[in-house]
Amino acid sequence: MKVYVTGPRADIRVPFREVTLSGDAPAIRLYDTSGPGSDGPAVGLPPMRSAWAAERVAGGTQLRFARAGVATPEMEFVALREGVPVSTVVDELAAGRAVLPANVNHPESEPMIIGRRFLVKVNANIGAASPTSTPEEEVTKLRWATRWGADTVMDLSTGDRIHEVREAILRNSPVPIGTVPIYQALERVDGDPTRLSWELFRDTVIEQAEQGVDYMTVHAGLLLRHIPLAVGRVAGIVSLGGSMMAAWCLAHHQENFLYTRFEELCKIFARYDITVSLGNGLRPGSIADANDPAQLAELRTLGELAWVARRRDVQTMIEGPGHVPMHKIKENVDLQQEWCREAPFYTLGPLTTDIAPGYDHITSAIGAAMVAMYGTAMLCYVTPKEHLGVPNREDVKAGVIAYKIAAHAADLAKGHPGARAWDDALSKARFEFRWEDQFDLAIDPDTARSFHDEAVPAAPARIAHFCSMCGPKFCSAKIGHELQRYAAERGVSIDAAVATGMSEKSAEFVASGGAVYLPVTTKSA
Amino acid sequence: MKVYVTGPRADIRVPFREVTLSGDAPAIRLYDTSGPGSDGPAVGLPPMRSAWAAERVAGGTQLRFARAGVATPEMEFVALREGVPVSTVVDELAAGRAVLPANVNHPESEPMIIGRRFLVKVNANIGAASPTSTPEEEVTKLRWATRWGADTVMDLSTGDRIHEVREAILRNSPVPIGTVPIYQALERVDGDPTRLSWELFRDTVIEQAEQGVDYMTVHAGLLLRHIPLAVGRVAGIVSLGGSMMAAWCLAHHQENFLYTRFEELCKIFARYDITVSLGNGLRPGSIADANDPAQLAELRTLGELAWVARRRDVQTMIEGPGHVPMHKIKENVDLQQEWCREAPFYTLGPLTTDIAPGYDHITSAIGAAMVAMYGTAMLCYVTPKEHLGVPNREDVKAGVIAYKIAAHAADLAKGHPGARAWDDALSKARFEFRWEDQFDLAIDPDTARSFHDEAVPAAPARIAHFCSMCGPKFCSAKIGHELQRYAAERGVSIDAAVATGMSEKSAEFVASGGAVYLPVTTKSA
Repeated sequence: MKVYVTGPRADIRVPFREVTLSGDAPAIRLYDTSGPGSDGPAVGLPPMRSAWAAERVAGGTQLRFARAGVATPEMEFVALREGVPVSTVVDELAAGRAVLPANVNHPESEPMIIGRRFLVKVNANIGAASPTSTPEEEVTKLRWATRWGADTVMDLSTGDRIHEVREAILRNSPVPIGTVPIYQALERVDGDPTRLSWELFRDTVIEQAEQGVDYMTVHAGLLLRHIPLAVGRVAGIVSLGGSMMAAWCLAHHQENFLYTRFEELCKIFARYDITVSLGNGLRPGSIADANDPAQLAELRTLGELAWVARRRDVQTMIEGPGHVPMHKIKENVDLQQEWCREAPFYTLGPLTTDIAPGYDHITSAIGAAMVAMYGTAMLCYVTPKEHLGVPNREDVKAGVIAYKIAAHAADLAKGHPGARAWDDALSKARFEFRWEDQFDLAIDPDTARSFHDEAVPAAPARIAHFCSMCGPKFCSAKIGHELQRYAAERGVSIDAAVATGMSEKSAEFVASGGAVYLPVTTKSA
Repeated sequence: MKVYVTGPRADIRVPFREVTLSGDAPAIRLYDTSGPGSDGPAVGLPPMRSAWAAERVAGGTQLRFARAGVATPEMEFVALREGVPVSTVVDELAAGRAVLPANVNHPESEPMIIGRRFLVKVNANIGAASPTSTPEEEVTKLRWATRWGADTVMDLSTGDRIHEVREAILRNSPVPIGTVPIYQALERVDGDPTRLSWELFRDTVIEQAEQGVDYMTVHAGLLLRHIPLAVGRVAGIVSLGGSMMAAWCLAHHQENFLYTRFEELCKIFARYDITVSLGNGLRPGSIADANDPAQLAELRTLGELAWVARRRDVQTMIEGPGHVPMHKIKENVDLQQEWCREAPFYTLGPLTTDIAPGYDHITSAIGAAMVAMYGTAMLCYVTPKEHLGVPNREDVKAGVIAYKIAAHAADLAKGHPGARAWDDALSKARFEFRWEDQFDLAIDPDTARSFHDEAVPAAPARIAHFCSMCGPKFCSAKIGHELQRYAAERGVSIDAAVATGMSEKSAEFVASGGAVYLPVTTKSA
């Protein structure tokens, strides 16, 4: 059930998914990305933040306000949403350790924050890939992604209807929308990257800025001198934006115009409060290429650019790999944090092995959980179709859920306040055979319920005091209950239970149910 | 294609899956668990090791021979299989850091080794759970599990046909088979654990030993004094064997007979060379209970027992959790290795969060990859049905593959010699658009092929020089090829490429294809 918590002013209403539980168990509130309306036609969401943007008549980005010590309504909103003091939000934004992507022209979005001190976020990529994709189809994908927990969505559309599709997405999106403007710029030069230019790119950025895009990936750190470093790689340049800029640099033998014009770009971004996401054009595309000189040279340049952007009041995050074996993941985060002055890291995976096309949501969920534990603030999802095809609806769900799992596992590992309450509520429901509560608390209630019903089809079984794995005769969880009851009834403290002579009571234990509900079958020892 | 490499004597024939690649790419040999026959009726595999067992007329376990500096045929076999010197195998076995589970009565098994210096192994659980399960059905599950890479299989059957099912599994299994004998013992007392006894348990162990079970889980470390430590837990005692022994201890107020009779048990194990797997009866069943006093108290006892078993020449491994958040995984391995004198660790997962029933192959693949990187030698798989129901065929496959991914990611992270060759071969095939090679090298060729064909149905596309994600017009990988060709044709070294004046050649680059094959659409920036 969606509930709203009102902030210090009445128009700050923060959404949560409240899961009510049976019996005495207290309800639990979970972070909710699904937005105010996700069923009807794509007629647009209410422009909740319009008034807030209008109040900022003096202009300025969230970073600028934070530096001035001003808590904007957006900051108040995310503080409530994350369950942290607003001062933490202001401090982290002011230091550049977090970003709050919120274009003034996207008033439909519900504010969220990306930074290592906050809940780890997940991005899902969508976008019209064929000439026949319609805006309605993309809005359906958007709603599907945010239903399962996508915190931001990148629209990677191409094709003739690119402007129209983006407009439909923005007007219906409760989450920040990111783009890679070079894709649209390339459309305008008929796919020939050597014909790209600063003017063309700038105009594309302004068009998208006016529509309300909240963050943009810009491959400004890939320099001419970095390109030869990638020649000997196993997998070459796998970033599409990176390969375009490499082609342009080589064809013109000029420095990347995104780098040389970066200050001008920042002026545009500041005007709309667009967050810049500095693209990882030389990210490794294979285990062999991880943390190689090409990747690290570009990362150093991204650090310089982050500094430039910050001076211009532009919120900045840094994109990262890619394919990285587990033992090289921490180095990646550590260097990024050091070289980029703690700007939020936003990684694709990383995939921890190359051998499993068809399962790269799993190869990369492993890397994503680890990279997030080490400090990455947002994870770009990878679907099972990675390397093989365009993800369909089920792939999008599989990717989002694998990444929400990775993000939450990292929140637990980092000790984010409140993260463990969800696990504890679910485990308590499981231990107490509150099956419906367990399903309702699951990250995907539909799947949990259907898997259980396959095993135990009859409705009464859902409230039965036994596990669907072990059958009605015995269940290991029952012994735990017997133990607890045994201790409670006799006032036996944990430490004293043996010392106070449990032998005298062993007969009682047998009488009180010690012989019941033990397992005859199971799937694990 | 299955190939055999012959060892120092003609009857040592080690199987590999050889993947032949197109063009000049060298064939690659992968570890193969599928055994010599996996299609026909379950008539039994050839008893390959019969002669070897007969040669050991003096008796003795692999541990005893290793301590004496003798390399048995089994050790020669695994050395070839792992690509390491046989001296490494002998040394690791002698030190108790590895086990080679091979009951003298299971001559059908192909020797394999479990230890942190070797490839990380994966166990799959199967077993007849309903009275109607047939031996044939379980052999089908066994073959399915080993086809996808299960290194060992545990038969957790219960019910009337338990002996017959186990016999069919053993006679048809090319991998070591593990059991939890207490399950069968419980059948014999009509499911009442308080009626268990040492004599009953001993007879069950001997029956299974005679059949050829290679390793047995024994919950001998759960002591009476540990039980109160579990009373306050969120999830109580979730191990089924553990809950049985706890019930027995409480009912009789006596110490666990598996502990008090452990020396006698070891004598039986030594006679057949059965590896003992010391069960983790107090493993945590929720994030809240991870690394708690109950779990750690039992682990200390397992360390004592490992020492007893080793003195009796019994090969020993130690079972581990369960549910553990990422930041507590390393401590788990470190304490196990310290307290158990480096005996191989064999963990169930661990699951890194409790919130995702239906996806616990993923929550636990994250933990499994990490725990293996830190030194766990074998991983017990978890399927998507964990906590919800009995896994079906597709669940078994999903579990095995998720765990083979975790194991291989750990092999890479540990720098196992030869592990990366697989990744490099696949990434090179990907970069060079050798689609059929990429599918053949994939951990699951069927899925990789079908996902790709969904996107690009026509056969010619499989040999096309473009990616199914980006379409035929452009592809980022092409720019990599252009770069390589550009550098190669001009003799430009990586370091010198910029310095030697690429500007003069920029026109050539454009002419030579710099404008072709760049992406118009993609799914990631």
